[in-house]
Amino acid sequence: MGRVFNFGAGPAALPLPVLEKAHKEFLDFQSSGMSIMEMSHRSKTYQAVIDSAEAGIRRIMCVPDNYSVLFLQGGASTQFAQIPLNLLGKGQVGDYVNTGSWAEKAIREGKVVGDVNVIWDGAETNYMTMPKAAEITESENSAYVHITSNETIGGVQFKEFPKTKAPLIADMSSDVMSRRIAIEDFGMIYAGAQKNIGPSGLALVVMRTDLAERCPETVNHIFRYSTQIKDGSMYNTPNTWAIYIVSKVCEWVEELGGLDALEKINEEKAAILYDALDSSDFWTPCAQKESRSLMNVTWRLPSEELEKKFIAEATAAGLAGLKGHRSVGGIRASIYNACPTAGVEALVKFMKKFEEQA
Amino acid sequence: MGRVFNFGAGPAALPLPVLEKAHKEFLDFQSSGMSIMEMSHRSKTYQAVIDSAEAGIRRIMCVPDNYSVLFLQGGASTQFAQIPLNLLGKGQVGDYVNTGSWAEKAIREGKVVGDVNVIWDGAETNYMTMPKAAEITESENSAYVHITSNETIGGVQFKEFPKTKAPLIADMSSDVMSRRIAIEDFGMIYAGAQKNIGPSGLALVVMRTDLAERCPETVNHIFRYSTQIKDGSMYNTPNTWAIYIVSKVCEWVEELGGLDALEKINEEKAAILYDALDSSDFWTPCAQKESRSLMNVTWRLPSEELEKKFIAEATAAGLAGLKGHRSVGGIRASIYNACPTAGVEALVKFMKKFEEQA
Repeated sequence: MGRVFNFGAGPAALPLPVLEKAHKEFLDFQSSGMSIMEMSHRSKTYQAVIDSAEAGIRRIMCVPDNYSVLFLQGGASTQFAQIPLNLLGKGQVGDYVNTGSWAEKAIREGKVVGDVNVIWDGAETNYMTMPKAAEITESENSAYVHITSNETIGGVQFKEFPKTKAPLIADMSSDVMSRRIAIEDFGMIYAGAQKNIGPSGLALVVMRTDLAERCPETVNHIFRYSTQIKDGSMYNTPNTWAIYIVSKVCEWVEELGGLDALEKINEEKAAILYDALDSSDFWTPCAQKESRSLMNVTWRLPSEELEKKFIAEATAAGLAGLKGHRSVGGIRASIYNACPTAGVEALVKFMKKFEEQA
Repeated sequence: MGRVFNFGAGPAALPLPVLEKAHKEFLDFQSSGMSIMEMSHRSKTYQAVIDSAEAGIRRIMCVPDNYSVLFLQGGASTQFAQIPLNLLGKGQVGDYVNTGSWAEKAIREGKVVGDVNVIWDGAETNYMTMPKAAEITESENSAYVHITSNETIGGVQFKEFPKTKAPLIADMSSDVMSRRIAIEDFGMIYAGAQKNIGPSGLALVVMRTDLAERCPETVNHIFRYSTQIKDGSMYNTPNTWAIYIVSKVCEWVEELGGLDALEKINEEKAAILYDALDSSDFWTPCAQKESRSLMNVTWRLPSEELEKKFIAEATAAGLAGLKGHRSVGGIRASIYNACPTAGVEALVKFMKKFEEQA
């Protein structure tokens, strides 16, 4: 089979040029006589790889010098625990914005560690909307305000971030490096790599370095941000393969023209798909219009039977991963960075044909 | 450059047939039109991969049915914390056998969580010996007895495991699946994958399933073994790539003839190298004879200057990764499963020549 257009929510499509480069040097990395997977993380050759990944992230996302860039294991789900363990002090409260499934998981882990205050909840709209910045009021003794910048399952995305006194922390797993954000407005952002920047098994953490000092000594060394900051993400053996792929993805983004160019492409892709959805009553987009995600586009068909047929026929036509999350059903097209415009165009073309024949 | 013989301690050499198979299907996994890295962990195709990895581990290592096989993130270093968090109850003590650097790291994390008793310490011999089974006496209120079956830095290895009343827990990062052990004698074994079974970013955990029930509710969900047992290592997105490589390594081991065949090869490889070291006073093996590791062989030369020369000339001759750990110096040859006999023979040939010319 030829290469399909992959709309899966994650692990998701990687840029084809990245895969091709990795394929080419797979058996012999930079004439070392071994694969990158077989190389010591303490070697000069590997240090250059992780340095290149960090430098790429810093350049592309304009990370200020007083922020640390960490490559950790355990995905965003481990961050749900590490954040309160490191940053939720006694007498403080962790403020959480509940925008859907992923925010709920973060809240669940916060509650194990300390006091949690859900300062906004999207339950009324079944999590099909995001709060406006002004709707978010932090607690007086807030340790941090936690938000989920994009909810992968619902397909909703923050458009305007709140300004908070306590550090603003954002789970950006599904929209990291897809649009320009001002890092200095956040205490920390983090993301599982497997949607926009690499393979699974890696979490990117960008945090204001001074925040790491808050961690109490009751927390295991391996879970303290300060431990990994001190050792440049190599306190223990990191996921060397995934970091290598991230370095290649960063090269690809910079060759495209950086984040401004990528953001423009992402906006265009989303516009093509939402325009198609809005052009006919056959499709019912799920997210409220002003909260629509540029990364995960969710919609329904007139019946579940038609949805099943749509997914099956799309898959057969080389349009993969369109099934909505098992918790909500429907259709979901994840159009992350690596999804080409041609993929969205092919999907829209297929949709028009499907509607005509339905 | 052609493929070198890689004696690095980890991330370490992978079997060449595994790399070649992964290379072949890198851009299109099983005619899916995508790479294995781009595939949903919830897909049927991927479920077959993780099932195959687990079944391979179970067959090769004869894992009893009342044990769970988990593929976790964070390496062995995260296990150092997860073990006491899950298993060290109030009023109990965690017994630790201190055999060197890695045991010390496990002890350090244990102390953050609760009461720790170091029931044996190899300091007297500078950690160049392992205890005999009879030297290990557990505490009365022992939650578990933790050992490190092989110390990668010193190059010492347990030959005979103690029988304990409390669950015996072994960090087998550097000798997992290299020799036959009776899993039923252990409460749990675990290993970072990057030495004998796969790439970095993955820890294999094999544990008696009932032990997972001990975890208190004060521990974050993501760190509870019960969470991952319930969800088949997929509570959150696992390191899909590393698990895929593990499945291929298991296939390779079974094609070789399984663990009995592999153990024989490993014994032969180690004998070739230790015989060379014992045949001349030019070399000084570090580990005490009865504790010598079959995986990490450590020795000294008459001077540090000669050691530097040895490493440089060996590297130039295609024998990579022979530098001892930075904390102890000297020479270390890690001859894990994927290191072929031909590699050890080439090393010994080089050593003879080096000695003649020194």
